[in-house]
Amino acid sequence: MARIAIDMDGVMADTTSHYLKYYEEEYGIRVDPATLAGAAEGEGFDDKEACRRYITSPGFFRTLPVMPGSQEVVKALYDKYEVFIVSAAMEFPLSLKEKLEWLNEHFPFISWQRVVFCGSKTIVDADIMIDDHDKNLRYFDGRKLIFSAPHNLHINDYQRVNSWEEVAAALLQEQLVKG
Amino acid sequence: MARIAIDMDGVMADTTSHYLKYYEEEYGIRVDPATLAGAAEGEGFDDKEACRRYITSPGFFRTLPVMPGSQEVVKALYDKYEVFIVSAAMEFPLSLKEKLEWLNEHFPFISWQRVVFCGSKTIVDADIMIDDHDKNLRYFDGRKLIFSAPHNLHINDYQRVNSWEEVAAALLQEQLVKG
Repeated sequence: MARIAIDMDGVMADTTSHYLKYYEEEYGIRVDPATLAGAAEGEGFDDKEACRRYITSPGFFRTLPVMPGSQEVVKALYDKYEVFIVSAAMEFPLSLKEKLEWLNEHFPFISWQRVVFCGSKTIVDADIMIDDHDKNLRYFDGRKLIFSAPHNLHINDYQRVNSWEEVAAALLQEQLVKG
Repeated sequence: MARIAIDMDGVMADTTSHYLKYYEEEYGIRVDPATLAGAAEGEGFDDKEACRRYITSPGFFRTLPVMPGSQEVVKALYDKYEVFIVSAAMEFPLSLKEKLEWLNEHFPFISWQRVVFCGSKTIVDADIMIDDHDKNLRYFDGRKLIFSAPHNLHINDYQRVNSWEEVAAALLQEQLVKG
């Protein structure tokens, strides 16, 4: 059974929407996500330190919105692949507990045995990786899917998926054809 | 640079001593660690549920004693190998924060990028693994060192190390010879 490593932030969780919401609450400005395109994560905002403040504040990770379609597709993947949730959570120690609670609430079918919180993802041994960060995909040895986010739209090195529907098309349809 | 995955509980942290201390505090009995030999972790005590209670109680992981010699040897390994600390912490969510604080206190030279908290360790890609549990070593693909603990003394499938001095002899001497 092929093993998939699935990222949380920006893939299962809609981090960009959450940034926009926090930013609007702080500054009263509704930023157009299109204006963030191509900038490194958080640096597309006028206040380039804002997102860093948000992700280090209690509650940010616990209240992240679920990425549309992710629950259904991760569930389907879970039945056909060895799914591991791999999050680079170690940089933000406060996030560990919140991320685990978030997973238990929104993806209760995922066993604790399939959850990995790490710093560098270079240690991950899997066949497929779904991630929104070039820094994680770059050192990975298997099939790479880049999940679209404003900060990665200029990267053309990997198979791009713009939504969970496209993940399903890439990884579940094939599976059916093979089976 | 070869990569080593080093376990925390029973390897960097002296879990057995901590069990014995908690048990003595609860029951007033100083258990001889020799009587635990060969039993599964925690099951060598008359009260077989005791250790499970201890590891799910706040503070247990934060106050673990450091395994003698581990600080010096892990430091030396850190300079010569790509060291990752890999702990199967996900079963006990309370332990995540405590384990990170414990690492920061006793092994401050270890970068957050080199810390992995997981459930199953099957996802770990490394060249060498030091662990006290057969269940972790069994599925590992590289060189395996079993760090002696009462619950593994009957296992003869891996290179055994009885102390951090023996880890140094196995992994640092060779390195010097090779270099």
